[in-house]
Amino acid sequence: MKLASYQAQHFLWQLEEAVATITLNRPERKNPLTFESYAELRDLFRALQYAEDVRAVVLCGAGGNFCSGGDVHEIIGPLTQMPMPRLLAFTRMTGDLVKAMRACPQPIVSAVDGVCAGAGAILAMASDIRFGTPQSKTAFLFNRVGLAGCDMGACAMLPRIIGQGRAAELLYTGRVMMGEEGLAWGFFNRLCEPQELLEEARKFARMLAQGPTFAHAMTKKMLHQEWSMGLDEAIEAEAQAQALCMATQDFQRAYRAFVAKKKPVFEGD
Amino acid sequence: MKLASYQAQHFLWQLEEAVATITLNRPERKNPLTFESYAELRDLFRALQYAEDVRAVVLCGAGGNFCSGGDVHEIIGPLTQMPMPRLLAFTRMTGDLVKAMRACPQPIVSAVDGVCAGAGAILAMASDIRFGTPQSKTAFLFNRVGLAGCDMGACAMLPRIIGQGRAAELLYTGRVMMGEEGLAWGFFNRLCEPQELLEEARKFARMLAQGPTFAHAMTKKMLHQEWSMGLDEAIEAEAQAQALCMATQDFQRAYRAFVAKKKPVFEGD
Amino acid sequence: MKLASYQAQHFLWQLEEAVATITLNRPERKNPLTFESYAELRDLFRALQYAEDVRAVVLCGAGGNFCSGGDVHEIIGPLTQMPMPRLLAFTRMTGDLVKAMRACPQPIVSAVDGVCAGAGAILAMASDIRFGTPQSKTAFLFNRVGLAGCDMGACAMLPRIIGQGRAAELLYTGRVMMGEEGLAWGFFNRLCEPQELLEEARKFARMLAQGPTFAHAMTKKMLHQEWSMGLDEAIEAEAQAQALCMATQDFQRAYRAFVAKKKPVFEGD
Repeated sequence: MKLASYQAQHFLWQLEEAVATITLNRPERKNPLTFESYAELRDLFRALQYAEDVRAVVLCGAGGNFCSGGDVHEIIGPLTQMPMPRLLAFTRMTGDLVKAMRACPQPIVSAVDGVCAGAGAILAMASDIRFGTPQSKTAFLFNRVGLAGCDMGACAMLPRIIGQGRAAELLYTGRVMMGEEGLAWGFFNRLCEPQELLEEARKFARMLAQGPTFAHAMTKKMLHQEWSMGLDEAIEAEAQAQALCMATQDFQRAYRAFVAKKKPVFEGD
Repeated sequence: MKLASYQAQHFLWQLEEAVATITLNRPERKNPLTFESYAELRDLFRALQYAEDVRAVVLCGAGGNFCSGGDVHEIIGPLTQMPMPRLLAFTRMTGDLVKAMRACPQPIVSAVDGVCAGAGAILAMASDIRFGTPQSKTAFLFNRVGLAGCDMGACAMLPRIIGQGRAAELLYTGRVMMGEEGLAWGFFNRLCEPQELLEEARKFARMLAQGPTFAHAMTKKMLHQEWSMGLDEAIEAEAQAQALCMATQDFQRAYRAFVAKKKPVFEGD
Repeated sequence: MKLASYQAQHFLWQLEEAVATITLNRPERKNPLTFESYAELRDLFRALQYAEDVRAVVLCGAGGNFCSGGDVHEIIGPLTQMPMPRLLAFTRMTGDLVKAMRACPQPIVSAVDGVCAGAGAILAMASDIRFGTPQSKTAFLFNRVGLAGCDMGACAMLPRIIGQGRAAELLYTGRVMMGEEGLAWGFFNRLCEPQELLEEARKFARMLAQGPTFAHAMTKKMLHQEWSMGLDEAIEAEAQAQALCMATQDFQRAYRAFVAKKKPVFEGD
């Protein structure tokens, strides 16, 4: 399957050099999510699982903000009117987006400037790599709308990224974590100047897109797969996964390049 | 059930504005724990599970120290004389205190000044939020009395708070982690001046006590519940938990307040 | 069983004051691993499980480097020629080395200077305590040879040591983590000057070797055992483990020393 000609309805989609860029694009509202954009993102990340022409994904927002989360008027309001089965259908749909982001083989690099709030903070958290700016304002502000911090996997993922104590504070209070704090805590991998952020994220994604693609996908899969395994079981699982990678042509290519004192060119098989 | 008139026997108990303050209060011995205070704390935290009038808990010590842990004369001495079944009954009782702290719905804020040692360090670790001071001296010093670092859940919890490598060092050596180090490592959420520590912790607890109470309790429950879940299972668990929160009146109140451009007043249902 | 007279074939082995030092010793190649040294290390760490005369282990490399990982000519080359069953036999052998390092009761202190790459970085990661230098260059560079970051347990262990986000970056990119970064992230417990590194690591190991040996072994075992337990189950597991420690003579010795205002002398039983 190829996604080169994918026509996005609720955000921008660009594909260059095997790097897809998804731009949340309602800058006048700081790029909120809606029922429709959630569903399309879920379907797109599910499609990415089979997309042969995409090797890395950049996720960003237009106009100096990443994403303001679920729109108060378009999402919160309707939710207050829904019966339980529809509420659960909604929370499962948002959870399915995170599952799809974790299940697709492409590493996801989030470029986070400005507001990164609620479900927006979750999308950043569910990415593999996060680049921020000194102005990034990340807030898991579910408690501000009367909800719990356990949204789309936050109580599982955030403690593993920044530690249990810091995660508890952010999830109980909904307070803003600024860029520098996020860098110091390991939420962000790097801070960039706002005007350089997207290009830096893309540069990183292009580097990942050069492969080894099969191996990168295996790294992502095993980071997910070993989440709650015992350590001995994880070691056996990695013995199997790495043996698979040793049977690839890319492993052969790397060895031949090394012997020839050249840089390997990976082809993904 | 209400705890407003609870009469504590082995520590101080205060309840104001739905915030309970538990003060370990044998300052001349740096607030050690005894068989009796362990048991009363366990029973109190179990009672808190059903207490309608308590929405957050502050845990602190009198006289400039948090807690010196199990008293050498009143606990360690007797333990050296006990047969195995009574030893196990004791370690289970101390573990039950931690289980009760993790199971009660109220977030627990520890205010840690001065000595925070042994079982005292465990009580701080088992809290949701930790405020320290530059003078806080936290030490998991079980090895100093010939015991292992695996006490009351330390080998499970400490690595998730400060990382596996740092936790191993503290648990093998029993060395002191000073306040600044604890802040840098994510053990402490904030450092305060000693004279402001208790009031800062209470201010934070009062903020949590304003709710949304049902949602905060769900955040706490899910941080516990997802401890060893797979990530996909955790996402489904959160879909269910958050759908429950969306069925609360507090969610409605938050939305109506937002539309009216007011601050929401949560009522806990 | 005793290892005092053990004759190492593929590295150096020294045993002094119950502290064993394993020195990877092919400095002209930055101490690579070979099929033979992997196998001997695995067998040695398995033997350590029963070695009565070793109470702590120091792992280091000769000539200013720790370990350059699997040798390209002696390991990578042959692997490119192997059928799948032999590939899996190899990745299982390397995984068995990590399992043996985690299963032996002695705490392992790695002294990491210079190059610490690939499987070398894994050996450091699988240790209990890591001392580095400002010049330490740690790189999980499996992707550079076309392989995945999931090698010998890396996707399970590294996120628990430095956090999920930082681990993902190192595993996807294979980039170098310098000493200062490793210290800030909790990978290293301490940085030393290169000329003092080995002696500092040994001093720390000698301190651990003074015991309480049974308790230290229990701390190590439970850090492993509780890896993927639920928190309540971990607390019960620790109640049992600590009750065992309370039945030791070392616990009695510590109490008597305390009463006599002396430093306890632990004997390991």
